[in-house]
Amino acid sequence: MSPSNLQYAARPSATREPDRPQPLDHEDFAVEEPPAQSVAAGIAADGGSVWRIERRLASRMLRVIGSPPVRLVLWNGEEIAECGERPIARVLLRDRPTFWRLLLDPSLQFGEAYSDGRIEVEGDLVQFLETIHRARGAMWQPGDRSWGGSCTATLGGLMPSALLRRLHRARANSLVGARENIHHHYDLGEDFYKLWLDDEMVYSGAYFPTPAMTLEAAQRAKLDYVARKLWLKPGETVVEVGGGWGGLALLLARAYRVHVKSFNISKRQVLYARRRAKAEGLDALVEFIEDDYRNIKGRFDALVSLGMLEHVGTAHYRDFGRMIDRGLSPAGRGLIQSIGQDWPDETNPWIERRIFPGTYPPTLREMMDIFEPPRLSILDVENLRLHYAETLRHWLKRFEASTGAVAAMFDERFVRMWRLYLAGSCAAFAAGALQLFQVVFSRPGINDIPRSRARLYS
Amino acid sequence: MSPSNLQYAARPSATREPDRPQPLDHEDFAVEEPPAQSVAAGIAADGGSVWRIERRLASRMLRVIGSPPVRLVLWNGEEIAECGERPIARVLLRDRPTFWRLLLDPSLQFGEAYSDGRIEVEGDLVQFLETIHRARGAMWQPGDRSWGGSCTATLGGLMPSALLRRLHRARANSLVGARENIHHHYDLGEDFYKLWLDDEMVYSGAYFPTPAMTLEAAQRAKLDYVARKLWLKPGETVVEVGGGWGGLALLLARAYRVHVKSFNISKRQVLYARRRAKAEGLDALVEFIEDDYRNIKGRFDALVSLGMLEHVGTAHYRDFGRMIDRGLSPAGRGLIQSIGQDWPDETNPWIERRIFPGTYPPTLREMMDIFEPPRLSILDVENLRLHYAETLRHWLKRFEASTGAVAAMFDERFVRMWRLYLAGSCAAFAAGALQLFQVVFSRPGINDIPRSRARLYS
Repeated sequence: MSPSNLQYAARPSATREPDRPQPLDHEDFAVEEPPAQSVAAGIAADGGSVWRIERRLASRMLRVIGSPPVRLVLWNGEEIAECGERPIARVLLRDRPTFWRLLLDPSLQFGEAYSDGRIEVEGDLVQFLETIHRARGAMWQPGDRSWGGSCTATLGGLMPSALLRRLHRARANSLVGARENIHHHYDLGEDFYKLWLDDEMVYSGAYFPTPAMTLEAAQRAKLDYVARKLWLKPGETVVEVGGGWGGLALLLARAYRVHVKSFNISKRQVLYARRRAKAEGLDALVEFIEDDYRNIKGRFDALVSLGMLEHVGTAHYRDFGRMIDRGLSPAGRGLIQSIGQDWPDETNPWIERRIFPGTYPPTLREMMDIFEPPRLSILDVENLRLHYAETLRHWLKRFEASTGAVAAMFDERFVRMWRLYLAGSCAAFAAGALQLFQVVFSRPGINDIPRSRARLYS
Repeated sequence: MSPSNLQYAARPSATREPDRPQPLDHEDFAVEEPPAQSVAAGIAADGGSVWRIERRLASRMLRVIGSPPVRLVLWNGEEIAECGERPIARVLLRDRPTFWRLLLDPSLQFGEAYSDGRIEVEGDLVQFLETIHRARGAMWQPGDRSWGGSCTATLGGLMPSALLRRLHRARANSLVGARENIHHHYDLGEDFYKLWLDDEMVYSGAYFPTPAMTLEAAQRAKLDYVARKLWLKPGETVVEVGGGWGGLALLLARAYRVHVKSFNISKRQVLYARRRAKAEGLDALVEFIEDDYRNIKGRFDALVSLGMLEHVGTAHYRDFGRMIDRGLSPAGRGLIQSIGQDWPDETNPWIERRIFPGTYPPTLREMMDIFEPPRLSILDVENLRLHYAETLRHWLKRFEASTGAVAAMFDERFVRMWRLYLAGSCAAFAAGALQLFQVVFSRPGINDIPRSRARLYS
C-alpha cells in the first residue's frame, strides 16, 4: 500500500448506523496500487478552471449514489465530498472531458477512463467499489425503476436509461456470436491465466470450507464438492459444458472413475486440456470436444457446468434445457454453477464491452427456463457468493504480483482493465450485487438419492 | 393387510426396465385396508351387464395413463387390464354411474367415489397411487399440454381440460376467503389431529436425518433444523406466519431465547397455542396473534413460515413479499417451507374441494414473486420431498390405527376422505409429483452469515 493510501486505511465503521450491513474487512487483502504521485502531479500540471455547474454536478453525482464516504478530486485539485465521514478513497479525474463523459454514461465511462489512466483511485480499489455498490443499494426503494433501480450507471448518469440500454446492447450468443464472444476472453492464452489462477487452472468460484485455505486447496475442495453433489458412480458418463482447461473433467476421471465428455468452444482451452489428459494417461476416460452445447448428442448420467451459463444468455436457456432433456438418463442428475443476481439487472456495459462480451448473470427465476419445460426437479440451491469474493481476492493478489509480466504480454492499459475487472467483480460479490448459485437437479421422481446433505460435510 | 391383498404384495420390479425409476418399497408401511369381501360381495350382488363401449373405454382409461400394472374390476365382476405385469392393485367400480363420472372428470370423481365407497382399492393404497403418478409422468413428453401434461385428470378424462379448469376453479384467498378456507381444515379440532400427529402437534413435513427415527424425533429435528438455518441470536425478534398449534414458536423461545410473534387465522389453533405457552411459562417470550399475514406490522430480525405458503395463492405472493420487506431488519433473514411443484400444475380438484380449499403448491419460479420485488437474496433451497413422504407414512399409519375414533368424531365417509388425502399426498411426494422446498433468504449483501452449511450437520 502506498503512503498516500494509508491515511484512508482505517475503516469508518464507528460512525455508521449499528445495524447497517458492514462491508468486508479488506485490510488483509489490500492490493498494491501504483503510486499516486504521478497522477497528483498530472492533475496539478493540468490545472485549469472548474465551472460552477461542474462543481454542482460533481456533488449531485455523489448524492445520487447515496453520498458514499468518497472524495472526487477534480482536474484543478479541488475536492468534492458529500459525506462527513472520513473518506475511504479519493477519485481523481484528470481532465474535463473525462468528467463529462462520466456524467453522461458512468457505467461505461468509469471503466474506460480508469483503463486509460484518466481516472485514478487512491485507496483500496475493492473497498471503494464495494462502498459504491452498497451506497447505491441503500438508495433503492421498492418499485424504483430509475436510479439504483434498473439504471445501470455507476456514478450518476445524465442520459435516459432507455437510451443507455440501446447503447449498451449486449452481443448475441448465436452459434457464431458465441464463438467470437468466448474467443475474446478465454483465448488470451494459458500463459496469462497461469500467472494468477491456481495450479489446476480453475477459472470459476472456489469453495473455502475454512477461510484460511490456499486458493489451490479451495479449488480442489470446490471440484470435489461439485462431484459429491452429483453422487457419481464409477463407470457413469458425465457431460461437462464449458470445461475450461480441464480441471474438473480430469478430477472426475481420476478420482471418481467416470467417463467425461467435456464440451468447450474455446479452441486453445480444448487443446490445452487434451494435452493434460494425455500427460496424465486419462485420455481413455476423458474426451475434450470443441463444440457448442447445442450440438451435444448421446446419453449421459450427469451433466455439470461451472461458470459457463453466464455466456448462454436467457434467450437460449430453453435450448440448454432441451439439450439436457435429450441426453439425460432416466435416473440422471446435474449441477449448474453460475454467477447470478437477486433481481434482473443489465450486465455492466463496460464489462460486457471490454471483458465478457455477451455475458449475463441470471436470476433464479430466469434459470427456471432451463429446468421447468423439461420438468427437471430442483434438489438443492446454494448461494456461494462470499466464496467467489474470496476467490477473486486471491486472483487479484496474484494478478497484482504479476503486473510486470502481464504488461510485457499485453500493455499497461490491459493491466488496468483487468485490475478493474477483478476488483470490481470482487466488490460486486462482497456487496451482494452478484450471487453465485450452485443448482443441483435431477429427473423428476428419482428416489435413489441421499436424503440428507450431511454426507457432503462428513 | 387383508388376505385378498397379499397376493399383490410382491413387487414386480424384476420385470421392469433396469433404469426406470423404482417406486419406494412400501412393504414396511403397508396400511390395513378394510376387508374387501363386502365390496366384492356388493359388486357380485349388483351384477348387471357391461356394454362393449364401456369395456373399450375402460381399456382406454388405463392406456391413456401409461398402462400401469393395475386391474379395473367393473360392476359385473369383469376385470380389465392393459399391462402384462402382475397387478399391484385392483380398483373396484361398484356401479355404472361411478364409471361414467370417473370417465368424465377423473381427478375430481375418483376422490368423490372413493369417499362414498363406490370405488374400492384392493392392495396398498399408497403404492397404487404412486404407480398411477409414475405411469402418468412416464407418458409425458416435452411440449405436451394435453394428457399427463396440463390435464389434471387422474385416470383418463373425456371432458376438455378448459372446461374442467372452469369447474375446478379454486376458492379465493382474500382476507375473508382465506379465513373460511383455513377454518375448513384447521379448525377440525385438536382432538382429531392429536390422534395422528406427533406430541408437539407439528402439521408440516418432518426431517429424518436417519430413516429409522420416530415421528416425534423427526419433528423435533425439523424444528431445530429450521432454527439453525435462521442462525438466531438470543433476544432477536422472530415473526412466524401460520404458527399451527405453536410447536415451532415455543421451541424457538425455549431453546433459542428469542421473542416470537406467531400469526395464524385459525382461531382454535391460536387458543390452543396460547394455553401451551402459558402452561410452559413462555408467554412473556411468545405471542400468538390471530391475524392475517397482510396485517403484520413492526420490525423483526427473522421471518419463518412452515407449510403456510400453500394457502396464500400466487396472486398474493407480492403482498407476502411486501409484508416481509416492511418489517425485516437490515440484517434480517428468513425461511419459508412450502409444498411445491417442478412445473405449474393445477391443484387436484378433489383435494381443493374436500380437503384444502384455496390451496396451491408453487414452483420455485412462482415463489420468486415473493423475493425478487423487494430484492431479497436467496441463500439456500433444499428439496425435502422424500422427508414429507416419510412423514405422511407415519401420519397415515397412526391415522389407520385410530379410524374407529375418527369415525366416532365424524363419520365413515370422513375416514375414507382423509385416508385418501393422506395416502394420495404420500404417493405424490414419493413419485415426485409434489416437492417440499425449504428456502432460506436474507436482505441483500449481508456478510455476517455462515459461509458453509457444515455447521448445520455437526
